Amino acid sequence: MLNFEFYAPARIIFGKDTEKDIGALLKPYATKVLLHYGGGSIKKSGLYDTIKTSLKAANLDYAELGGVKPNPRLSLAREGIELSKKEKVDLILAVGGGSAIDSAKAIAMGVYYDGDVWDIYESGESIEKALPVATVLTIPAAGSEMSGDSVITNEEKQLKFGYGSPKLRPILSVINPELFYTLPKNQLANGIADMMSHVFERYFTNTTHTDLTDGLCEAVLKTVIKNAPTAFDNPRDYNALSEIGFAGTVAHNGLVGMGRQQDWACHMMEHELSAIYDVAHGAGLAVLTPAWMKYVYKDNINMFVQFAVNIMGVQGSYRDPDAIVREGIARLSEFFAKLNLPATLTELGIDDKQLELMAKKSTYASEGEEEPLGGLKKLYWQDVLAIYKSAQ
Amino acid sequence: MLNFEFYAPARIIFGKDTEKDIGALLKPYATKVLLHYGGGSIKKSGLYDTIKTSLKAANLDYAELGGVKPNPRLSLAREGIELSKKEKVDLILAVGGGSAIDSAKAIAMGVYYDGDVWDIYESGESIEKALPVATVLTIPAAGSEMSGDSVITNEEKQLKFGYGSPKLRPILSVINPELFYTLPKNQLANGIADMMSHVFERYFTNTTHTDLTDGLCEAVLKTVIKNAPTAFDNPRDYNALSEIGFAGTVAHNGLVGMGRQQDWACHMMEHELSAIYDVAHGAGLAVLTPAWMKYVYKDNINMFVQFAVNIMGVQGSYRDPDAIVREGIARLSEFFAKLNLPATLTELGIDDKQLELMAKKSTYASEGEEEPLGGLKKLYWQDVLAIYKSAQ
Repeated sequence: MLNFEFYAPARIIFGKDTEKDIGALLKPYATKVLLHYGGGSIKKSGLYDTIKTSLKAANLDYAELGGVKPNPRLSLAREGIELSKKEKVDLILAVGGGSAIDSAKAIAMGVYYDGDVWDIYESGESIEKALPVATVLTIPAAGSEMSGDSVITNEEKQLKFGYGSPKLRPILSVINPELFYTLPKNQLANGIADMMSHVFERYFTNTTHTDLTDGLCEAVLKTVIKNAPTAFDNPRDYNALSEIGFAGTVAHNGLVGMGRQQDWACHMMEHELSAIYDVAHGAGLAVLTPAWMKYVYKDNINMFVQFAVNIMGVQGSYRDPDAIVREGIARLSEFFAKLNLPATLTELGIDDKQLELMAKKSTYASEGEEEPLGGLKKLYWQDVLAIYKSAQ
Repeated sequence: MLNFEFYAPARIIFGKDTEKDIGALLKPYATKVLLHYGGGSIKKSGLYDTIKTSLKAANLDYAELGGVKPNPRLSLAREGIELSKKEKVDLILAVGGGSAIDSAKAIAMGVYYDGDVWDIYESGESIEKALPVATVLTIPAAGSEMSGDSVITNEEKQLKFGYGSPKLRPILSVINPELFYTLPKNQLANGIADMMSHVFERYFTNTTHTDLTDGLCEAVLKTVIKNAPTAFDNPRDYNALSEIGFAGTVAHNGLVGMGRQQDWACHMMEHELSAIYDVAHGAGLAVLTPAWMKYVYKDNINMFVQFAVNIMGVQGSYRDPDAIVREGIARLSEFFAKLNLPATLTELGIDDKQLELMAKKSTYASEGEEEPLGGLKKLYWQDVLAIYKSAQ
């Protein structure tokens, strides 16, 4: 086990009807809120009105900025920063999924930053200050409701960069699984692939003596694998959705990766797809994760045997560990297929024209000083290209 | 799954040499610290000097109060409150195990409380304010390093009461498993029984649809069961001690019990033993837990089959669930025996003279309005007495 620091101060308020209290919950922290959200879905579902009613009942003033898109755009975050300054808001309330929350975090730090907020994503510099962020979660996926991470897409530069700081952790997040009832099936499936990837990125490691976090990772993944098909087939199954909603939060609040070298190659490779082709992050991960597994597993086959046996339930002869691992990966692909997730880049609408460009961008090989991806196995641009090609 | 709120803002700094930074870690929060600890062990081990050196290096002033005993006493907490007021300390630093930390929490809230701090434990009233508490953990056991709970013994009244508030959660806790190397074996064993009980109290429930927290509980318990014998036999095994140290924290930071009806009967029954006989809390729990299991399991046999199969590794015919459960409980008793933990009240030096008194005190039957213990099965004083008797 490696030395680590764990700090997850976001307060999680979980369960039925919890969003109705959002005004009272925010009252101690704010006088004027920026209500930040995506498109029409929260208006259609009535959530928009519920939130406004609750804010008004708590005598909280608010401004609002909708229009967040998946792979949230730098341009909208910039707009939110200007608006927040002008309206003198003192808290950003994201109502939505990871995109709305990540955009809210960009606004929260941008308000206190002298230059262009994109500089922070590009330089990775430490921030001193950010407005408090709170969230009402409508898509179980990104884990951004408890994390200090934000991923933003710079549409002009075709870059998708992540940034993390403890100052960006939401002060509180409200999670009512009933709000997931109206989610389109593909969004639920994408979210499931994303939260599973958040665990995989931490689970696959060369660090030894990680019994506790191995077990925690496996518990989260088995919970998702058990409940996802139920939720997919029965969109109003509260029990299944509450398991998935809670799992998505635990997957990404940091705990399950403590003391372990982490990987994150799949996330980095996927960001290149999203940046250029604007595909859904979870769908990209569903394509790349099995391809990555096949490419790297021989570098730590015991770790992958453990995955196949403990998570995917493979039984077989341990004298043929390759067969066990291949069966584990096949079962993961079958699981994704049941959720109608894509299995190839072609299904995502990505041809071979820019594979090399993306591979070189992912490792900064295009900028001279190459930084290989990954922890379990270091991946150079040629490796990334080979994985992209194997996923075509 | 029940609605829940999760809030665990304590920052955990975990690993080798981490205690050496305690001064710098506390500097942003304090000008003068009350250094609060137990007996001579931290002086013998050199930890006392390390802490002082670190505080001085950070230009932090300090007062000190040693003498914390297991089952920490109200009298010492009162002394600490007076001292903290007189010395104008602005942070309490507990160096020790659960007893030092719980005593520190009593001091932290007592400083701002007008009356006697015991009133808070007796009334359960909400507190407005407490000094910040930080900890350097020397015994993996109580989980108090991340929890908002404090248990104090009123030696005059022979009462041991717990109290919890978010204001009592430590702001940060330093956990270096190397500090556990010099622990007496019985203290390590007691700590292991205590942390396992913290999970059992949350695990055994009648709440359904709790896949994620079931899995998290099982991961913590399996980690402890795997690593405890190694640590017990090899007191300087860093890997085993780091698993146990981390497990003890996760066991009691709240996460594994979210959304579940919890039990806590064993803890309440044990507090009666400690209050009168001053036995070690963990040793008392090792005696009572299997006795409690045998008494209650028929009320939710499926929950106990899950315990036996998923945690204790029992395989057998599910057509005879009683046999599976009995085997699971037997394996737990064997596990405790390997750690030289007691199996009977007699081994704890407790005869039958006060069993009825303790049973009546535990449910307040002695005060007229009885409040049964437990969640999975409600236990009245006659039930508690039957459990005590079965553990003789």
